[in-house]
Amino acid sequence: MNEVTNLLMDHRSVRNFEDRALSEEQIETIVLSAQGASTSSFVQAYSIIGLTDKAKKAKLAEFAGNQNYVAENGHFFVFCADLHRHEVMGQMENINVIPSIESTEKFMVAVIDAALAAQNAAVAAESLGLGICYIGGIRNNLEGVAELLKTPDRVIPLFGLAVGYPSKKNDKKPRLPLQHIYHENEYKQDETAYREELKMYNKIISEYYAERTGGKRNDTWTGQIAGMLEKQTRMYMKDFVQKKKMDLR
Amino acid sequence: MNEVTNLLMDHRSVRNFEDRALSEEQIETIVLSAQGASTSSFVQAYSIIGLTDKAKKAKLAEFAGNQNYVAENGHFFVFCADLHRHEVMGQMENINVIPSIESTEKFMVAVIDAALAAQNAAVAAESLGLGICYIGGIRNNLEGVAELLKTPDRVIPLFGLAVGYPSKKNDKKPRLPLQHIYHENEYKQDETAYREELKMYNKIISEYYAERTGGKRNDTWTGQIAGMLEKQTRMYMKDFVQKKKMDLR
Repeated sequence: MNEVTNLLMDHRSVRNFEDRALSEEQIETIVLSAQGASTSSFVQAYSIIGLTDKAKKAKLAEFAGNQNYVAENGHFFVFCADLHRHEVMGQMENINVIPSIESTEKFMVAVIDAALAAQNAAVAAESLGLGICYIGGIRNNLEGVAELLKTPDRVIPLFGLAVGYPSKKNDKKPRLPLQHIYHENEYKQDETAYREELKMYNKIISEYYAERTGGKRNDTWTGQIAGMLEKQTRMYMKDFVQKKKMDLR
Repeated sequence: MNEVTNLLMDHRSVRNFEDRALSEEQIETIVLSAQGASTSSFVQAYSIIGLTDKAKKAKLAEFAGNQNYVAENGHFFVFCADLHRHEVMGQMENINVIPSIESTEKFMVAVIDAALAAQNAAVAAESLGLGICYIGGIRNNLEGVAELLKTPDRVIPLFGLAVGYPSKKNDKKPRLPLQHIYHENEYKQDETAYREELKMYNKIISEYYAERTGGKRNDTWTGQIAGMLEKQTRMYMKDFVQKKKMDLR
């Protein structure tokens, strides 16, 4: 353990920011940190769009289900899987890269590249004393987001990252027990033990919510998440991704 | 800038490790750091498999195209997108989560969750003075990997992370110019400027390779990457992912 791992383990989402913009230097440090992340075979298959335009931020907040911290923060980044760049370089080099960049494999590469970069950005921001919140809510309406941000084909906006000076910090949410997500040498398939672990974790989460709400909230983790997954949300995603010419083959 | 952002910007892959295993404490610190990352709506849709079994590591190295640092390192982690957990919790709660977890949306969620966790693991390892290398090569043969690691349906091994005490460090590879991956308020679509930026970057990369190889290697970035993308690799991925009941609808 050291200061860095303490920072990584102490993460909590921040959804309340002071009305104070990040400096150009902070933004540059965050983006350069993002770029420092590993990238699959050096493809650098992502882009970042930073938003300062208030009308656009308000529109994004609306798309994301009226989450006001999408509009009100120190800076808002959108991380995109990006293979448009690779289409252009294919044209420049007169090489046919199309079947390759339309594959599920390269779609995964681009999503992973963007996520690795984003997590470096998040860690950089937190190391600067800022708070962050990932905003998957922009995927509620990617047609709208793509139009707003003018992203071309082969670019998928994946999520936002709201960054700013925290005015309120959430409590740290207990994660699954380490042994439940970490397997040694092979994926454990003892269903009885597996369910027992989930039940034990349910108790931890119930206590966490009860404590935070003075006993009003009594969720379990499996109940909360299964309930959420019962609703079929963003089922247009396959069509959208394929319309953008990714994950096609 | 601070020590953390310096660490993030100073990343380079390590492919040569001392013959020295990580301690249990180091592994725990790395996994707990991974778990500290954000997770979409608290779904925690990933798993990590840590490998100590030498025969399994040798087999994985073979799958990954005979990269010996897959077998020879301080520890080897495999990060998996995991929605098996969510199928189980649906059964526990008697809630039908299947259409949801078979969607492209939830496939993306699981891939992103795993990547965010992995990048925290990578940063944690580097902060401990260790070196890391992501191993996308395990995707050369995911049928083999899934069988070796006994991963069930709805689990996709995405990449490995080799960690260990560096015996040799690579040079830091120059990234794309910040303004090429970072857009303000909307995705810049000036194709002429875009190509000029790529050509400028090509010069930087050519100089980098020339310097490292005493003038022997003279790649450009667009030439190198377009050449790689001309080869259609891992085109079985769509079938594999869908056989594992993800990204289906």
